[in-house]
Amino acid sequence: MKKRWLALYVENNVGVLAKISGLFAGKNYNLDSLTVGPTNNATISRMTISLTGSDAVFEQIKKQLNRCVDIIKVIDLTSSPVAVKELLFIKVLNCSVNEKTEIFHIAEVFHAKVCDCGRQDILLEISGACECNDELILLMEQYKNIEVVRSGAVAIEKCRK
Amino acid sequence: MKKRWLALYVENNVGVLAKISGLFAGKNYNLDSLTVGPTNNATISRMTISLTGSDAVFEQIKKQLNRCVDIIKVIDLTSSPVAVKELLFIKVLNCSVNEKTEIFHIAEVFHAKVCDCGRQDILLEISGACECNDELILLMEQYKNIEVVRSGAVAIEKCRK
Repeated sequence: MKKRWLALYVENNVGVLAKISGLFAGKNYNLDSLTVGPTNNATISRMTISLTGSDAVFEQIKKQLNRCVDIIKVIDLTSSPVAVKELLFIKVLNCSVNEKTEIFHIAEVFHAKVCDCGRQDILLEISGACECNDELILLMEQYKNIEVVRSGAVAIEKCRK
Repeated sequence: MKKRWLALYVENNVGVLAKISGLFAGKNYNLDSLTVGPTNNATISRMTISLTGSDAVFEQIKKQLNRCVDIIKVIDLTSSPVAVKELLFIKVLNCSVNEKTEIFHIAEVFHAKVCDCGRQDILLEISGACECNDELILLMEQYKNIEVVRSGAVAIEKCRK
């Protein structure tokens, strides 16, 4: 079982996401995360999929993806050097003045941005490696009332050196 | 036709994404973007979905989502004050030394981070509002050979004031 990365370029049509996610579900593969966004070509979307699984099933899935007419390109990023980032929001609700001060310090250390603030709430935003985000969440779990929103990982091949 | 935002809390089971995306496809609704990421509860994932469409169909879809057993909570963020951000990577390939200098200046103006750099390539990273990202992409299209990867929008309700 290994952590894997796939980038898919797909036609921006109705039903393509359903087809692709159905394919993974059919193999009983649960995805760790999935992001879909537009590219600079309006007819094409790009997905980043991260999943954990065995070599054999993964090869099968790649073959099936390659056969799908709506998929323009399948790129397996698992063994390429990639830049991986994830956008993370953490909202802390009902915090005291002291807790707020603490949270501002934590934000500074983790290079997170305090992007909104209410009388008793604070909203942090950070884009970082998934592991760093995991750590920040772990730290923030000391506050009882938090809300965590993660984009899921976005991966791109690094520059040719 | 209006831009809409949905946040879904779903059971982290195989096939849930296929079910949800199938539901949108069945109504012939194309999503603008979709992100799925973990929450601080390992059994629950959170999705942010952005789409454009009419009131009537949107209400139907919300009802159907609410009926789905794997969906724990449906939050319509369309008319709430939300913080929306998107992670964007832009890679410029085969750029000259002058172009590189220019790109560094552009990165500075847009508060983008140069997160990798090769002999002829540059990789920019930014997390910003979708409209700002659109503008940056438009500007970067002056370079012939670019690769754009967007996470899709992630939305969270702002703090109570």
